[in-house]
Amino acid sequence: MATLSDIMVAAAINILTAFAFFVAFAVLRIQPINDRVYFPKWYLKGLRSSPMHTGAFVNKVINLDFRSYARFLNWMPAALRMPEPELIDHAGLDSAVYLRIYWTGLKIFVPIALIAFTIMVPVNYTNGTLEHSNLTYSHIDKLSISNIPTGSCRFWTHLVMAYFFTFWTCYVLKKEYEIIAFMRLHFLASEHRRPDQFTVLVRNVPPDPDESVSELVEHFFMVNHPDHYLTHQVVYNANKLSELVEEKKKRQNWLDYYQLKYSRNQSQKPSMKNGFLGLCGERVDAIDFYSSEVLRLSKEITAEKEKIGNNPKSIMPAAFVSFKTRWGAAVCAQTQQSRNPTLWLTEWAPEPRDVYWHNLAIPYVSLAIRRLIIAVAFFFLTFFFVIPIAFVQSLANIEGIEKAVPFLRPIIEMKVIKSFIQGFLPGIALKIFLIFLPSILMLMSKIEGFSSISALERRSATRYYIFQFINVFLGSIITGTAFQQLDKFIHQSTDEIPKTIGASIPMKATFFITYIMVDGWAGVAGEILRLKPLIMYHLKNFLLVKTEKDREEAMDPGSLGFNTCEPQIQLYFLLGLVYAVVTPILLPFIIVFFALAYVVYRHQIINVYNQEYESAAAFWPDVHGRIMTALIVSQLLLMGLLSTKEAAQSTLLLITLPVLTISFHLFCKGRYEPAFVRYPLQEAMMKDILERNREPNLNLNLKDYLQISYIHPVFKGGDESGSDGASVESDQGPELVPTKRHSRRNTPLASKQSGSSRPSLSEVPINS
Amino acid sequence: MATLSDIMVAAAINILTAFAFFVAFAVLRIQPINDRVYFPKWYLKGLRSSPMHTGAFVNKVINLDFRSYARFLNWMPAALRMPEPELIDHAGLDSAVYLRIYWTGLKIFVPIALIAFTIMVPVNYTNGTLEHSNLTYSHIDKLSISNIPTGSCRFWTHLVMAYFFTFWTCYVLKKEYEIIAFMRLHFLASEHRRPDQFTVLVRNVPPDPDESVSELVEHFFMVNHPDHYLTHQVVYNANKLSELVEEKKKRQNWLDYYQLKYSRNQSQKPSMKNGFLGLCGERVDAIDFYSSEVLRLSKEITAEKEKIGNNPKSIMPAAFVSFKTRWGAAVCAQTQQSRNPTLWLTEWAPEPRDVYWHNLAIPYVSLAIRRLIIAVAFFFLTFFFVIPIAFVQSLANIEGIEKAVPFLRPIIEMKVIKSFIQGFLPGIALKIFLIFLPSILMLMSKIEGFSSISALERRSATRYYIFQFINVFLGSIITGTAFQQLDKFIHQSTDEIPKTIGASIPMKATFFITYIMVDGWAGVAGEILRLKPLIMYHLKNFLLVKTEKDREEAMDPGSLGFNTCEPQIQLYFLLGLVYAVVTPILLPFIIVFFALAYVVYRHQIINVYNQEYESAAAFWPDVHGRIMTALIVSQLLLMGLLSTKEAAQSTLLLITLPVLTISFHLFCKGRYEPAFVRYPLQEAMMKDILERNREPNLNLNLKDYLQISYIHPVFKGGDESGSDGASVESDQGPELVPTKRHSRRNTPLASKQSGSSRPSLSEVPINS
Repeated sequence: MATLSDIMVAAAINILTAFAFFVAFAVLRIQPINDRVYFPKWYLKGLRSSPMHTGAFVNKVINLDFRSYARFLNWMPAALRMPEPELIDHAGLDSAVYLRIYWTGLKIFVPIALIAFTIMVPVNYTNGTLEHSNLTYSHIDKLSISNIPTGSCRFWTHLVMAYFFTFWTCYVLKKEYEIIAFMRLHFLASEHRRPDQFTVLVRNVPPDPDESVSELVEHFFMVNHPDHYLTHQVVYNANKLSELVEEKKKRQNWLDYYQLKYSRNQSQKPSMKNGFLGLCGERVDAIDFYSSEVLRLSKEITAEKEKIGNNPKSIMPAAFVSFKTRWGAAVCAQTQQSRNPTLWLTEWAPEPRDVYWHNLAIPYVSLAIRRLIIAVAFFFLTFFFVIPIAFVQSLANIEGIEKAVPFLRPIIEMKVIKSFIQGFLPGIALKIFLIFLPSILMLMSKIEGFSSISALERRSATRYYIFQFINVFLGSIITGTAFQQLDKFIHQSTDEIPKTIGASIPMKATFFITYIMVDGWAGVAGEILRLKPLIMYHLKNFLLVKTEKDREEAMDPGSLGFNTCEPQIQLYFLLGLVYAVVTPILLPFIIVFFALAYVVYRHQIINVYNQEYESAAAFWPDVHGRIMTALIVSQLLLMGLLSTKEAAQSTLLLITLPVLTISFHLFCKGRYEPAFVRYPLQEAMMKDILERNREPNLNLNLKDYLQISYIHPVFKGGDESGSDGASVESDQGPELVPTKRHSRRNTPLASKQSGSSRPSLSEVPINS
Repeated sequence: MATLSDIMVAAAINILTAFAFFVAFAVLRIQPINDRVYFPKWYLKGLRSSPMHTGAFVNKVINLDFRSYARFLNWMPAALRMPEPELIDHAGLDSAVYLRIYWTGLKIFVPIALIAFTIMVPVNYTNGTLEHSNLTYSHIDKLSISNIPTGSCRFWTHLVMAYFFTFWTCYVLKKEYEIIAFMRLHFLASEHRRPDQFTVLVRNVPPDPDESVSELVEHFFMVNHPDHYLTHQVVYNANKLSELVEEKKKRQNWLDYYQLKYSRNQSQKPSMKNGFLGLCGERVDAIDFYSSEVLRLSKEITAEKEKIGNNPKSIMPAAFVSFKTRWGAAVCAQTQQSRNPTLWLTEWAPEPRDVYWHNLAIPYVSLAIRRLIIAVAFFFLTFFFVIPIAFVQSLANIEGIEKAVPFLRPIIEMKVIKSFIQGFLPGIALKIFLIFLPSILMLMSKIEGFSSISALERRSATRYYIFQFINVFLGSIITGTAFQQLDKFIHQSTDEIPKTIGASIPMKATFFITYIMVDGWAGVAGEILRLKPLIMYHLKNFLLVKTEKDREEAMDPGSLGFNTCEPQIQLYFLLGLVYAVVTPILLPFIIVFFALAYVVYRHQIINVYNQEYESAAAFWPDVHGRIMTALIVSQLLLMGLLSTKEAAQSTLLLITLPVLTISFHLFCKGRYEPAFVRYPLQEAMMKDILERNREPNLNLNLKDYLQISYIHPVFKGGDESGSDGASVESDQGPELVPTKRHSRRNTPLASKQSGSSRPSLSEVPINS
């Protein structure tokens, strides 16, 4: 068991590491050459232009103003200075609310830590249980509940504290839910007109032998929403097309690369092999080869587009139906349309950027089956993921390799390589798995058939949290694989489970403190350095960039990654709540994490990340629910712990706690969750009336505006790659009026998902 | 353990008992004097008039046509003869669908029994395990799974059968859900205009200092549903008024009784004491006393009515809002109205008869707290109900009574009384509790705050089922009180629980067979006799009845009592599914129960019961869900049983079964449940268009029609008690047009809940 001084040393090391990251960041950040890596958001907004245009060459690359090095931490107050409303305007509500998760952490844990240190630490410390026992113990254990003798009256303190902490957490959560629900509704109300406010996504349009999907949708909504229906857009199955576009883009990149290479070194024409991965096949002229490939793909894309336009089979049984009023859309999204509740399913259309086009045409039965399969797959992933890894590990030992490939023996027997294999290979399988886990979970969500990216990310986050809870939290407490735990739990009596876990919790405090420092502190500090984007940008800059436009494409602002970051935070909430009563010394470490992460992510959101979509904080119910789960888990574990301490008279009081917490959760769910799921008619009507008074002849304009908002991004790519400008729809409409959100950047932002570019919302024409 | 012949004897006894009941019923039924007890439904429908009007006096009282005695079972085919559509028309959809529960039982268990007897019974019987063991066993055990040796390959038969039974049950349930969803939608579509089709119940209207509730509701809906809002009716707090009306009715009954007594025996004026329960106080003339009481109450009622009409505080923050179209109402019921999701809560208005007026004004927070309290109370009721009963029992022993009231000792010591106390008293406390249990559960639901009687009954049914599952089913298998079980389960490992229960299941087969015969067979046969209503009718007839009108009131057709009958049936589903694989010999007993109950209840529904409300089979999702629960329980128990039999290689296959069943349940829930909760807009629109084409100037008539549909029944009681005819609302409207449902009976049917009479739906004016 680690002593207090061990922890201090570890803390010092981690603080120094974090400090080193910050210094590195401060130095790199102010170099003009890195400007696009550390401030891409401002470039995308068009508010910052390349510092490389002006001044001497040296000044363009390296910052020689040494005064700026002295102020190397001044980004911190700068990050905190931007007020929240401006932040929402600058980076969207999703990002602003995401930051509030850290803020909530601070609000919950700072008062809890203060109370715990003034009341509980003295109560724990003034006992002599550990001193009089034969156990080895550390100073940290003296501060924890372990120091209280079995059956002592002092457990009442912990009981009262558990009540107080629960009450405080619930209070903060309720306040926060209230504020965020208000922010969401305010955001939706104050926002400029968006196509998704008027539009409903209709899925599972039944097949009809006499009518096309488009006619069927039109007739259905003309009959059933006669006063409100405005227009609709069918969904084309453009999956093949987007693959082609994707491929063309890759070839184009290679073409650019070779052209650049040639232009730098005119003496030698670049050549390549045309076979698999450029490793085999005939040697050809690279520029010619890729030029012809790009040309071929352009032709194929045009053909495919024509095919999609003419073939009724490429129209999927789904449509985006737009209404004349927000009221009409709100009504349609919230009601059941047809007798058969699995047909004509309506839901709010996600933002155009947020649509996950692949999944729009999945029928209801298939959805049910997919859900089942994925649930079973996730169960096995969580509890049995160790098995394939152990298999790989067993292959990756020296003897195994020698047996499999005997001719490599002389090399393997070399000392350096042998120790490398023995020390590194077994771990690497697990590491690779953990790196790919978020992608695996994302893939699962995609298979499950959600129709918007935000929903995909939310579901992945939930799964990631469950995985972490079982494999990191429980796995660290009850050492052993998840499957062994499961086996143990099944064969253990129901009241033994919280006891087993509860009893081992105090002993694991030092482990988790180290975990928080390494994973939390150093992780957050590493986040700000953006090492990978930094390297990638400079590589691309060197290899591909010819024009300013290419340079813009080379910078990769990235986005928040809700599906990986949020479950990580939740782990800290869980640790904080579980240890608040048991070992309060853990709390300061968590508070430092939350404070640091808050500042760092605020900086990143302001300067770096570019939001891919705006879901108006639709994820908050999930966040709230997981903190509540953590709270209930902490209560159950405390119950288990106290019952092993023979403070059994408190059991009834402890059982009351989760019951109250659950009912509080249900209350919050009923009170606040609808604001995140439905759209109140009162709001819709208010907005409609206001708008109608401002613009009396709205409907005509609205139709033009809505007609083209929901088009598969590949059909909109006309401005990007000149050759495939012929789009299926009648194209961009009369004129582009810049809105507040308009970006003055040269190229539209490349989106992760489709590979081809999507025009930003503002490029959709509005006749105001 | 009972042998096969024991069971045969028990069966014979029970069959004879049932037969005796049927004979008694056959004899009593054809006596003209009992006509109103056994055919009240027809009187209420106005299709049958009293046989006492015609013929000789003897013929009026006793049936002398001896030929009719010979055909004493001919009610059975008669009950089965009415086709289902006519039944729906005659008794409502609720009753028709209720019968389908029995029918579903037959559909599930008849094929299962056939397969079980052809395949499983031979497989079980041809083993010699029990013969070679030292255990005592009966023939029944030889037919059950107990006869298969541990670890035998024959368990594969049971496994395959479990799959087959699950598949068959799910198939039948899906078909049934489909049919009933269709029946419901068809019923709603083909029905005549009903006020609840156009009306939405709005609860939690926020308080406003400047406007009255009525104005506020009008403004809110005029703004937010401008094209659809028609009218609204506020809800008056008439709880005190209905108490007064109730009391007046009781006094009136006593007055009638004494007047009748006096008219029969003119020599003596009836007198009574005016104190508590007529036991103390001054002796007064009974007729004078009750006349003045009735007069006083009439005045108080008039005063209270005026008070309610004038006092704005007696208007509750709830209203029935009616719309011009079904479409408008469907939209309003399914959407969220205001920013704050706990205000302006809208839901479909229940049928006017179905409204539970007491609960309309409960605010949201209070509802949440009530739900928590009732949940906790129900938990204690289920697991600890034995404690107060044991306490009463401990008081009710001889020594306790002698100690408490020593002067009674000589009486108690008498042998007859002593044995009576010892044998009877301990059991009676439990018996009384069980009799009152449905009322206790109903009270709980009322406190929980549901706003319609049908919802109250559904919730009570759920609770009753849980109570029976724990205390009857589990309680019989693991002998011991529910609390002891709970204690056992908490201290037992998770996989031990199904093993413990599963292993004791085969041994309890004979007990449950007896239970089915006594509770099921004899119970159903007793149901048809209607002993209590028979006695009550003749008592009332003798004591109160002066006019034909009084006689109509004296007959009490009763209603189905979904909250007690349905959970009872579910117990048989549970037993059937659990024992289908284990001891198939139980199945025929269950089939006999279902067949008998089907015929008997069909007869009762046609001839006796009078539906209190029509919820259009809204209870089916509950029924379906409970059968699914029974199926999953049976699978878990089979898993436990087989694992004790060391057929462990089957565990994986057995785990798959509940997983598949649960996902099937989720599929059904998504596919069919919306039909029972929401009202598809397509349907609403179709009906609207049809009606609008038929009656172009509908709106004007509609307003008159809807204006008065939702008035608290006490305000409508004008025609019943002449003196309080002044109603708050502007009263009955222009003219009464009889509809198909119009009943030609003299008095409106007294409803159980409010005590005062409600006019049937048809008496609401329709200007067609």
